[in-house]
Amino acid sequence: MPVNIAFCFTGFAPDTWMAAFRQALPEANLFAWQPGDPPRPADYAVVWRPPQAFVDAHSGLRAVFNIGAGVDALVGLRLPPGVPMVRVEDAGMGVQMAEYVTHAVIRHYRGFERFQADQARGVWEDRDPLPREDFPVGVLGLGVLGARVARAVAAFEFPVAGWSRTPHQLAGVRTYAGPEGFDEFLAATRILVCLLPLTAETEGILDRRTLSKLRPGGYLINVARGAHLVDDDLIALLDEGRLAGATLDVFRTEPLPAGHAFWHHPKVTVTPHTSARSLVRECVTQIAGKIRTLGQGQPITGVVDAARGY
Amino acid sequence: MPVNIAFCFTGFAPDTWMAAFRQALPEANLFAWQPGDPPRPADYAVVWRPPQAFVDAHSGLRAVFNIGAGVDALVGLRLPPGVPMVRVEDAGMGVQMAEYVTHAVIRHYRGFERFQADQARGVWEDRDPLPREDFPVGVLGLGVLGARVARAVAAFEFPVAGWSRTPHQLAGVRTYAGPEGFDEFLAATRILVCLLPLTAETEGILDRRTLSKLRPGGYLINVARGAHLVDDDLIALLDEGRLAGATLDVFRTEPLPAGHAFWHHPKVTVTPHTSARSLVRECVTQIAGKIRTLGQGQPITGVVDAARGY
Repeated sequence: MPVNIAFCFTGFAPDTWMAAFRQALPEANLFAWQPGDPPRPADYAVVWRPPQAFVDAHSGLRAVFNIGAGVDALVGLRLPPGVPMVRVEDAGMGVQMAEYVTHAVIRHYRGFERFQADQARGVWEDRDPLPREDFPVGVLGLGVLGARVARAVAAFEFPVAGWSRTPHQLAGVRTYAGPEGFDEFLAATRILVCLLPLTAETEGILDRRTLSKLRPGGYLINVARGAHLVDDDLIALLDEGRLAGATLDVFRTEPLPAGHAFWHHPKVTVTPHTSARSLVRECVTQIAGKIRTLGQGQPITGVVDAARGY
Repeated sequence: MPVNIAFCFTGFAPDTWMAAFRQALPEANLFAWQPGDPPRPADYAVVWRPPQAFVDAHSGLRAVFNIGAGVDALVGLRLPPGVPMVRVEDAGMGVQMAEYVTHAVIRHYRGFERFQADQARGVWEDRDPLPREDFPVGVLGLGVLGARVARAVAAFEFPVAGWSRTPHQLAGVRTYAGPEGFDEFLAATRILVCLLPLTAETEGILDRRTLSKLRPGGYLINVARGAHLVDDDLIALLDEGRLAGATLDVFRTEPLPAGHAFWHHPKVTVTPHTSARSLVRECVTQIAGKIRTLGQGQPITGVVDAARGY
């Protein structure tokens, strides 16, 4: 009996993804849900920001696959008891995140922004190299993506620290854990990279209190969720000269609204939530593999822990 | 008997370097040469673009240490028979070169230049990720710096190839060698990184013929010497749309003269020969160590092969 897979993507058409699933699971029966469709059975769901009505319209669900790594948009979703929510694990996102953050770190440390301004003015002016040990990088969140980012930055010989809710060990990275390790981690960090999951505990974690504890010349790279950051606190610290700058890929409202202070702040680099895109081929291969594994009665990884929220 | 070390830096004062040598070799007798100084004996010389008169003014030289990795500026210098010219090996330059090139590769591949232009206009517009396998990186020159650069780029999962005069093996890098491997290397390369020594064979190697053989959308990163590149050929290929762009750190005349087409070409990024600076502490530690090694009658590495020119 073929498995039935229901698709629901809010904000974009599922066609490309469904075509890839058709190739990966030719034996499956795929259908896209539309609001108002009558209830029907489905073995699996593949989703991006689905409404509750989508879940309620399908009986017999065995798992719901989110096509991204962050599942904070699904927190309010009520699944039938025992139905796991599964998130994408890496699937080509780790290397993207590593290159986005590494680029931002190097750009800031090496002053490429100033060189670019110099070129525009036809100015040839080198600066003496700054000691690398004065630019320790701290990574908030040591999951699949955070660990990959920490390793990538450490390869360029920056001192690298990492903080996570529960203790982690990572070669070449000084790790801190829990509330008791947070301030010490911040005091050892100049370039702060946020890769935390968004939960009730981490919402607004990048506020004046946190950002003020960074080493002098602090710099923020937020590639997690916009709601981790208190926008006005960042702006104030930049304007007070207590932070050197920020590279932001995620925002409380996306697209970032016209007129938001980040757009034209001279110390803020804005990118359109592009740091780690879900790659169709890699994600579909991973999810299709997990559907086959579940079909064989085997366990899968990437199941979201509803209690901790990621 | 203390060793005598003569210093001659053209273009900048040797004070910082001499102070570092005084700390590293407190037993040595250091002096800075000035044109017109009377001849005197010296055991070692530490130089940056010295004139022949400097060499001729010192008897008893046992080795001449260049404070950079590239020794092309010393090619015309006549040393007494058997006196080795020694160049700096890595000494903190490898990581700088790796980060400069990695930054340029990621910036081009990920389109950060366009995102920056978008931010300036207040435009939020993401682009679909491009397949990484369509951006193979080729490194010309697999010495200490080239090998480090190749490894750094490969860590971001780009296909990486390397070319050198004589065969090299490098894990994770497809290597080519000699004139017979050159065209095949170019045909496998989209982003070309030049890290060759400048010799009679490599002068002008980045010309129309070479650059035309890159894969479509070719991009040049030159961090070796300005004389490797035929400037007009690059400009023509960019203007014909046969190359996508270039990041240039080195130029035939430095500082790059006002009015040179590179300054304001929309597809060219110019930096002021900053990719890998000689770091005083690291270089002095290395050279002082070699002076001690020679003093103990032991051999050292980094001796320039006069015949091959590097």
